[in-house]
Amino acid sequence: MNTSFETRPVPPPMLAALAERFGDRCSTALALREQHGRDESPFDVPPPDCVVFAESADEVALVVGLANEHGVPVIPYGAGSSLEGHLLAVQGGLSLDLTRMNRILRVDAEDLTVSVQPGVTRKQLNEELRHAGLFFPIDPGADATLGGMAATRASGTNAVRYGTMRENVLGLELVAANGERVRTGSRARKSSAGYDLTRLIVGSEGTLGVITELSLRIFPLPEAVSAAVCFFPSIDAAVQTTIQIIQLGVPIARCELLDANSVRAVNHHDRLGLREAPMLLMEFHGSESGVAEQAQTVQEIAREFGGEDFEWATTPEARTRLWTARHHAYLSALQMKPGCRCVTTDTCVPISRLAESINESVREVEEAGLPYFIVGHVGDGNFHLGYLTDPAMPAERELAEALSARMVARALKLEGTCTGEHGIGLHKQGFLVDETGEAAVAMMRSLKRALDPRNIMNPGKIFSL
Amino acid sequence: MNTSFETRPVPPPMLAALAERFGDRCSTALALREQHGRDESPFDVPPPDCVVFAESADEVALVVGLANEHGVPVIPYGAGSSLEGHLLAVQGGLSLDLTRMNRILRVDAEDLTVSVQPGVTRKQLNEELRHAGLFFPIDPGADATLGGMAATRASGTNAVRYGTMRENVLGLELVAANGERVRTGSRARKSSAGYDLTRLIVGSEGTLGVITELSLRIFPLPEAVSAAVCFFPSIDAAVQTTIQIIQLGVPIARCELLDANSVRAVNHHDRLGLREAPMLLMEFHGSESGVAEQAQTVQEIAREFGGEDFEWATTPEARTRLWTARHHAYLSALQMKPGCRCVTTDTCVPISRLAESINESVREVEEAGLPYFIVGHVGDGNFHLGYLTDPAMPAERELAEALSARMVARALKLEGTCTGEHGIGLHKQGFLVDETGEAAVAMMRSLKRALDPRNIMNPGKIFSL
Repeated sequence: MNTSFETRPVPPPMLAALAERFGDRCSTALALREQHGRDESPFDVPPPDCVVFAESADEVALVVGLANEHGVPVIPYGAGSSLEGHLLAVQGGLSLDLTRMNRILRVDAEDLTVSVQPGVTRKQLNEELRHAGLFFPIDPGADATLGGMAATRASGTNAVRYGTMRENVLGLELVAANGERVRTGSRARKSSAGYDLTRLIVGSEGTLGVITELSLRIFPLPEAVSAAVCFFPSIDAAVQTTIQIIQLGVPIARCELLDANSVRAVNHHDRLGLREAPMLLMEFHGSESGVAEQAQTVQEIAREFGGEDFEWATTPEARTRLWTARHHAYLSALQMKPGCRCVTTDTCVPISRLAESINESVREVEEAGLPYFIVGHVGDGNFHLGYLTDPAMPAERELAEALSARMVARALKLEGTCTGEHGIGLHKQGFLVDETGEAAVAMMRSLKRALDPRNIMNPGKIFSL
Repeated sequence: MNTSFETRPVPPPMLAALAERFGDRCSTALALREQHGRDESPFDVPPPDCVVFAESADEVALVVGLANEHGVPVIPYGAGSSLEGHLLAVQGGLSLDLTRMNRILRVDAEDLTVSVQPGVTRKQLNEELRHAGLFFPIDPGADATLGGMAATRASGTNAVRYGTMRENVLGLELVAANGERVRTGSRARKSSAGYDLTRLIVGSEGTLGVITELSLRIFPLPEAVSAAVCFFPSIDAAVQTTIQIIQLGVPIARCELLDANSVRAVNHHDRLGLREAPMLLMEFHGSESGVAEQAQTVQEIAREFGGEDFEWATTPEARTRLWTARHHAYLSALQMKPGCRCVTTDTCVPISRLAESINESVREVEEAGLPYFIVGHVGDGNFHLGYLTDPAMPAERELAEALSARMVARALKLEGTCTGEHGIGLHKQGFLVDETGEAAVAMMRSLKRALDPRNIMNPGKIFSL
């Protein structure tokens, strides 16, 4: 991680202009700045010089235009739930808080599309949609904003069936680095109209502009939903079951692995009383008979690998309780080692390589003796191993980083990626080069220079220029 | 359509270098050049100065490197089935024929991925996959190459269930305009590793580099497949049925509209004996019971709108016959007016707007009295209206273009796109600006200049610089 950047502070005339325009929606209070320079990553906070709360795309355009004029970094801010240091003001500049742009602009139920401002969170959107019998499937653990989720190309537990932000953003509005407003995509389901700017911005981690509006695909709530847990004698057995499910083309909606450590953590945090053994938490969507058929197929596969009888969550309340616990897994695990920090991995491999990827990583961390937990969107080949480290013991952090590096190297050898859903941010820049090669990163840098010649948009993230 | 480009012919020293390196795989024969300067579009041929047949990515890199040095246009060539003038050498230069790079490099059945060279055609791939119980769903009408299909972000009849090339290209290898080889993506199902270069190249119409390899998603052949045709009293009834199917979330695999003119044409061409009335041609994929359930739901919806009883194609042979006829619809329709040319539209709108989009277009062409036909991937909101014009009567072509422009304007007003799957090419450049705005096209131009500063890659397509 390169932290030796030159900082580019907000100059006094620009600060004065912002203060005049935004009043108390522009703040230099240290506590607020520190809160905006922090995320869920284990890095130390370099706070921004000021925080501006935007309430409209016009305001965003004004701020970005000023920043471009003065060559000052702009870091878009949503829920603050990044795990990769995206929000750290490594080159100074301002944090542009978009949480007040939180209106759901349109729900087009008949087209299964919705238009939202970037500060809308996934839970807020689903609250609104539920009444219409609809839902938006992408669910990272945190109640992230949809702007942030687009910026990191987030996914979550439903991606195996419904795709990620890559597949579910139809179009967006952007304030580009020059302050101009750009619209990409349309509400049509597909298009061949020129370069796919939408997907260039999705996953660009705030480095190409500020997303000010999103058109998203939404889905009808399935006629039938059932969730089940299944315990296995080993992580490997659970993973082998998953591989079979995917290879047979079962349209499973969610297929999540929790290792015994994660189950223990969520038991403790959410008082669930689950058996503390490797577990798949699954959900089936479809018609009544379709769901029953899928569940039966999966139960048979699980039995082949020593999986036990499914335990069903039949009521919506029981389902919600299980999935809420799953979404709390990360925070629950942190609480198992009070005061700890967590180095989280995010590799994703072709499904046939998943067992090797997980088994070796478990062997290595067990040998190293560091506390850890595993949760995984295993249906996608994606899992997170969290290493819990004591901030007072730098050697633990180093050990965790070394284990993480070995895991990434293995994932790349297995033709996978260093990050399935969290993004590159500050921490994985070396891994990005290992994964995709210097030529591809050089191409990314060319694109960045073309669209942000003064390097003001979240500079120093993904790569340094 | 701007045809007043300066041409940049291949200079003699470069031609000599190519001839020395490629021998008779570098040709200046007029017939060959004219064949490579033509596609399925109604434009006149400006042939390239020479045609080079590449057999490896190294050879592609050599050709592009030379072209970049000499500032000479390179036009990648596959099956020649573009409908939008992509292959026309409007600025001179060379046609780079990739059809000899037609090896299927790997089939990873357990991961549902395949790696292919760009000259592999969709039928060739499916021949290979069928034996393993697998298939690749994207099927434009022609037996296009996968490189060409990626370049135009193609889709076809299965997109409503399986997505388009956008969703099904996992990664690719590219020779960039500077002759460097770049790898994008991986075999992982999802990734957040930096800018989505894969999807920037998919749909870039050969303007950012030459695709030399593709990793694609493939799918298990469904346990059960059934195809049915259903006749309707009007196009509107068929469209209303489609809208309901999609809004209810029925996971239909294919949902194609043929108007009475198209049915007549395929009857004539493929001796089918279908009733010459508006028709939906549908296919259901899933388990035996799942397919039965879907079909029953759809039959009930169709009846509400006056649709008749389904006629089933129960055997694989009967299904193949129907779908082959569907894929012949374009050529069949051309034969209904011997010697004609065809102006083909490709709008795609949000599903709720599809009836308005089709009905108005039909009303206008009926009023104008021009022969036409309609085929549509209506499950996506996408349809093609082909206007058949007599090349000896320029007024017919002008009328067709005027009707097409009105249809596009309407599609944009309905929040759709001017092209669902054919691309912008030469002909829709004005529509692209209308659709996405000057700012977005300016952003596309910036990307192009950054990655191809000498403007050698298929110049003059999508936009002019």
